[in-house]
Amino acid sequence: MKYIEININCSAERYSGGIIIIPTRHRAALIRDFGKPLTIEEVPTPAPKDAEVLVKVISAGICHSDIHLWAGDYRPVGVPKTLPWILSHEITGVVVAKGDKVPETIKVGDRVLVYPWGFAEEDERTLSGYTQLARKRARLSIDIPGGLQEYLLVQHYRYIVNIDGLEDPQAVAPLACAGLTTYNAVKKIKPYVGPDEHVLVVGLGGLGTYAVQWIRALLPHANLLVADIRDEAIEFVSKLVKIDAAVNPVKEDPVKTITEITKGEGVKAVIDLVGLSQTIGTYLKTLTTLGVYAMVGLMSYEASIPVPHVIRNEIKIFGVYTGSLGDQHEVIKHARKGSINYVKAISKRFRFEEKEVNEAIKSVAEAKHLGRVIVVL
Amino acid sequence: MKYIEININCSAERYSGGIIIIPTRHRAALIRDFGKPLTIEEVPTPAPKDAEVLVKVISAGICHSDIHLWAGDYRPVGVPKTLPWILSHEITGVVVAKGDKVPETIKVGDRVLVYPWGFAEEDERTLSGYTQLARKRARLSIDIPGGLQEYLLVQHYRYIVNIDGLEDPQAVAPLACAGLTTYNAVKKIKPYVGPDEHVLVVGLGGLGTYAVQWIRALLPHANLLVADIRDEAIEFVSKLVKIDAAVNPVKEDPVKTITEITKGEGVKAVIDLVGLSQTIGTYLKTLTTLGVYAMVGLMSYEASIPVPHVIRNEIKIFGVYTGSLGDQHEVIKHARKGSINYVKAISKRFRFEEKEVNEAIKSVAEAKHLGRVIVVL
Amino acid sequence: MKYIEININCSAERYSGGIIIIPTRHRAALIRDFGKPLTIEEVPTPAPKDAEVLVKVISAGICHSDIHLWAGDYRPVGVPKTLPWILSHEITGVVVAKGDKVPETIKVGDRVLVYPWGFAEEDERTLSGYTQLARKRARLSIDIPGGLQEYLLVQHYRYIVNIDGLEDPQAVAPLACAGLTTYNAVKKIKPYVGPDEHVLVVGLGGLGTYAVQWIRALLPHANLLVADIRDEAIEFVSKLVKIDAAVNPVKEDPVKTITEITKGEGVKAVIDLVGLSQTIGTYLKTLTTLGVYAMVGLMSYEASIPVPHVIRNEIKIFGVYTGSLGDQHEVIKHARKGSINYVKAISKRFRFEEKEVNEAIKSVAEAKHLGRVIVVL
Amino acid sequence: MKYIEININCSAERYSGGIIIIPTRHRAALIRDFGKPLTIEEVPTPAPKDAEVLVKVISAGICHSDIHLWAGDYRPVGVPKTLPWILSHEITGVVVAKGDKVPETIKVGDRVLVYPWGFAEEDERTLSGYTQLARKRARLSIDIPGGLQEYLLVQHYRYIVNIDGLEDPQAVAPLACAGLTTYNAVKKIKPYVGPDEHVLVVGLGGLGTYAVQWIRALLPHANLLVADIRDEAIEFVSKLVKIDAAVNPVKEDPVKTITEITKGEGVKAVIDLVGLSQTIGTYLKTLTTLGVYAMVGLMSYEASIPVPHVIRNEIKIFGVYTGSLGDQHEVIKHARKGSINYVKAISKRFRFEEKEVNEAIKSVAEAKHLGRVIVVL
Repeated sequence: MKYIEININCSAERYSGGIIIIPTRHRAALIRDFGKPLTIEEVPTPAPKDAEVLVKVISAGICHSDIHLWAGDYRPVGVPKTLPWILSHEITGVVVAKGDKVPETIKVGDRVLVYPWGFAEEDERTLSGYTQLARKRARLSIDIPGGLQEYLLVQHYRYIVNIDGLEDPQAVAPLACAGLTTYNAVKKIKPYVGPDEHVLVVGLGGLGTYAVQWIRALLPHANLLVADIRDEAIEFVSKLVKIDAAVNPVKEDPVKTITEITKGEGVKAVIDLVGLSQTIGTYLKTLTTLGVYAMVGLMSYEASIPVPHVIRNEIKIFGVYTGSLGDQHEVIKHARKGSINYVKAISKRFRFEEKEVNEAIKSVAEAKHLGRVIVVL
Repeated sequence: MKYIEININCSAERYSGGIIIIPTRHRAALIRDFGKPLTIEEVPTPAPKDAEVLVKVISAGICHSDIHLWAGDYRPVGVPKTLPWILSHEITGVVVAKGDKVPETIKVGDRVLVYPWGFAEEDERTLSGYTQLARKRARLSIDIPGGLQEYLLVQHYRYIVNIDGLEDPQAVAPLACAGLTTYNAVKKIKPYVGPDEHVLVVGLGGLGTYAVQWIRALLPHANLLVADIRDEAIEFVSKLVKIDAAVNPVKEDPVKTITEITKGEGVKAVIDLVGLSQTIGTYLKTLTTLGVYAMVGLMSYEASIPVPHVIRNEIKIFGVYTGSLGDQHEVIKHARKGSINYVKAISKRFRFEEKEVNEAIKSVAEAKHLGRVIVVL
Repeated sequence: MKYIEININCSAERYSGGIIIIPTRHRAALIRDFGKPLTIEEVPTPAPKDAEVLVKVISAGICHSDIHLWAGDYRPVGVPKTLPWILSHEITGVVVAKGDKVPETIKVGDRVLVYPWGFAEEDERTLSGYTQLARKRARLSIDIPGGLQEYLLVQHYRYIVNIDGLEDPQAVAPLACAGLTTYNAVKKIKPYVGPDEHVLVVGLGGLGTYAVQWIRALLPHANLLVADIRDEAIEFVSKLVKIDAAVNPVKEDPVKTITEITKGEGVKAVIDLVGLSQTIGTYLKTLTTLGVYAMVGLMSYEASIPVPHVIRNEIKIFGVYTGSLGDQHEVIKHARKGSINYVKAISKRFRFEEKEVNEAIKSVAEAKHLGRVIVVL
Repeated sequence: MKYIEININCSAERYSGGIIIIPTRHRAALIRDFGKPLTIEEVPTPAPKDAEVLVKVISAGICHSDIHLWAGDYRPVGVPKTLPWILSHEITGVVVAKGDKVPETIKVGDRVLVYPWGFAEEDERTLSGYTQLARKRARLSIDIPGGLQEYLLVQHYRYIVNIDGLEDPQAVAPLACAGLTTYNAVKKIKPYVGPDEHVLVVGLGGLGTYAVQWIRALLPHANLLVADIRDEAIEFVSKLVKIDAAVNPVKEDPVKTITEITKGEGVKAVIDLVGLSQTIGTYLKTLTTLGVYAMVGLMSYEASIPVPHVIRNEIKIFGVYTGSLGDQHEVIKHARKGSINYVKAISKRFRFEEKEVNEAIKSVAEAKHLGRVIVVL
């Protein structure tokens, strides 16, 4: 492909003493058939209008939901709407052009994270800060094409979060989903956890990698327990933060072990990143009186809960879905303050080539890597 | 039985120009065998010491949990500890004597409600206002003998709630359990319900009778939906408050009907007073985004919940167990301000005679009466 | 002026079987000199683009801040930016045309209230629901021209609140400021006020007229006290809602009187709609332990507070500024549910003629009318 | 004084293989005349009954309010009630005897902190967790004699907080007032402070020493600013925690400096430990929109606040008074987890001899020492 300097009819600007080169067409990784390898092909580069922003992609994270989209698992609920489709909702990039209503605080050349949980229409939820729960959602890779391509048109400048000051912009990408969702979950349990109380993270995959770090950052005086059926996953997070105790339910009775660890008290909060009927049914029982359960993982349609335990202990269960734009800004501020190590959370970086992109998909589908996987453009 | 004026070694006082007559022995309705008729027998009248208060019982409500205690259903969890046992945790009475540490604000002659969800030892929960969730509970009729007797020794003056100004002290009794628990439930959902949003009460038995009233009192601008399989129960509460819509799941698909009633929006809050797997599984699905579900009823050990619906809509589920002493005071203040009609909530008053007491038990066991049933002493 | 049907280059539509007639120029009441009579002159009618909406004004309320703007009192802080200027931020109207990004839920012909506390740029506050506290505000009549004109261009469809179902659209207008601000204030104190506790409203002018109604609607079980130096103002609100007690500080010592009324307890919450050093200094002292003080009125630059009373009783003081767009939607829902009588709150309706408009200004400046004053177009 | 083993009619027990020696009389430091040197004299040792606990004092902190009590400054409000009087409400000690209603979890030999903000009668505030705001307070050294004596009778076991595991029990004492009050203040502001926002502590005396540590512990991702007129005080706290910026209002315009430090944004929260009209008037102005101001210091009767700034930015002002028993337990748990360095907060330890005790008083009165001063028994 030949790159030329073009006028794409918007405020592309010179910056850093150089010139922004925006091609009229760019490469994108496309789903042409569900479950078949992605193909990298050329697509037109759109010009941003009004409040839109054009971003040259730096990095695109691969999330489990991308695997489901790719496999066609969500066709029963109508997503994606069409083929071909472009995956990835964890995007960092550089602003290369912007519409005429984009404020001056957003500049060509800015390194940014794209908040992916946008909406098509403002409503009372978006106006109350629940941007991710809009009636008409416009989520990257789910409702609108994602960022596994060289240039991404962002619908509105409000979704642009400046990441200047973060040294590894590639590694920042998963903070838009894995990092954001776990932050939302930990914020929800935070008011309920006092000093020296116990918090349990169930499931130490991509999200767990961030969850344990948020707990250490936001609840430094809590005791951190983790549960996973893979010892290597426990080992992986143990290198990121201090774990007070770990449980492998394959090897031991988790309720019994946790009861012992907590001297009969039980845990005050659970972050369930798995969401199997088995995890929900089991770990709700480990909660003490006035405990809270954050349901994040979505691996089952139905789960059985122990009704008397929930009632007699006035337990609270919170559904957690991604996070708001307000949360997203806080996540980046935390990253800047060093609250979490977002670099070590990345276990593998793939290049934006057909073979590697498909390896990245396969890697997540088969849970080959701990931590989070990104494609670097 | 012969009543004589006696000195029972505490500050029994003359009042209302008369003399308090406290017999050394009094009549109590005893469980001698689980599931067998109660017998009314004489038991010693204790003298209150320190912070204790002796109350002459006016009225004792019969709750479903009394039926379970009577039938011996709770023996697996060790309650009651001994036989004979005395039922009822919904008590009003008159203060007739008090220990020397009881403050002057509590006077012999006061008409009072007894808060039944006491504790044996103060801990960080009782000190934070969760009096009903103490580590060591001393609950009337469950952990310590109840009030289905002429005189009740109250362990501490803190459990005494003055009900002066309420015209029908007999009818006040169920405000200690049915009225209190539903108040706690409605308070928990209240911050989440805006004007013109929908609240659904599932189950219109004893508790439902109060729940619909609390919703009208605390959320006057919400729309009130009810669901019950008995048309007569729907009719009963419709006489107490204005119901906006009613659903009989025997006759119609409740999810479909509620979707229609709410024009596709769903309800913002559910108060589930049944707690069957069926009700929880069904009515969680009627919740809209950011909806809340108060689990009060306890009729099943396990219930299946729709995980994706809870997560994608950030739904909250709250266990609700009786209520705190702070709630109890508020309940009585509300009754005094006319927020609820506690008199009409009483459907049947039995006399404190062996035959009638056993009829009261049978009546609740067989759910013969709508509203609430009390025994009048 | 000659009205002709014109194409103003946007989606003006036929409705109600008729045709929308939008003149290219329309009449507006202009400030040409601070403190001088307004003049009604012709100005161009703009065509809405993108997310903009053109509204034909039904009614424009006159607020005290309009008087300050008119008098030039705010020139030290730079508002208004230019002359001529157009007053009024309490606007109802009919949608007559809309830009191409306005959703279909907003239709030509809709009767609407315009939320006036908009912003020029989204930021983390607007995204968290504090739309009125944006860094770059675009408030009607303060930062951008107001609605005292026949046609108003609304910057974004998000500010359009449908008022269908409200019978008197003229009278709805003050719900955008007087009604909204007091709603925000009452919502802020609401979580702190229990049954049978006392709430005091200080100042029974335009805002007080709504505040007493919100307290009755949102805190039906509180006792309502009011304070004003004008007996006729007390009388005016007494016709709208039941007042439990009134204090005229000219005639009595307000602290002493309130102490007596509350039997030594004090009030749990104060809504201060005056904001003089005298009211703040005086009425903070009437608060009981854990009481809350909503500061709304803005009649002084400095006010002296009783420090030990605030500290020893852990009192909370909340600044209250207009209200959010979320609040605005709730206000209209409440009006629809009959929570408040917005019609009786209007004491005088002026016509949109030079003489009457200036009389309206004078009337508010001299506080001639109780309740709220509007200009009807 | 001759110590003998005596029976004081309660459950004094042998422990640690030894014998508890409780004298019938013990030494206490008495105020005989306001403002005159304390005298150490013998007083009777009471025997604990019921829920009471007798503690052998290890350490007694000297607080500024002790100086006021000693000087007679509080006589206008009726405290202390009588002379002679015993100062100090910051007490650690060893349990040496207990009444028959004290639970087994409290053992003779336990090292404990005494929560000093007790009450004479339970009420709806104590029952809701606001133990320090009771209607009838029984506060050590204010309402009942304090702990500057060898043996202290604690009114109820609920005030006993186990401090086992804390290596320096002497240094723990000020956690009952200076440490507790600042914890309460930081908890109140905590929900409002996001990552990378600024918190300002005004006044770096005894309380400031703890406040800066709580901010670092509970808000690790905030920026910490401090203000004091004494450079040595700034230096003292800088050795305890990392300070991001310091302001000396004697040397610079604090509002200007803080505006610069925060790049025009202002601070999100202020903890004012001084409470002069000057500090309140000045530092309220440094708050950004939606900022919070914790008023803790009590050095003036009246303070002037900038009304428009508070209203237009929806600022919140919170009175903070000591802390609850729940807070007290959390403070000790935090100390155990290493959240704060309570040892370095102690700048001087005096012995329990007449000369040294009076030097301790003088030292605090003249603010000779930074940090906190204790008397060791």
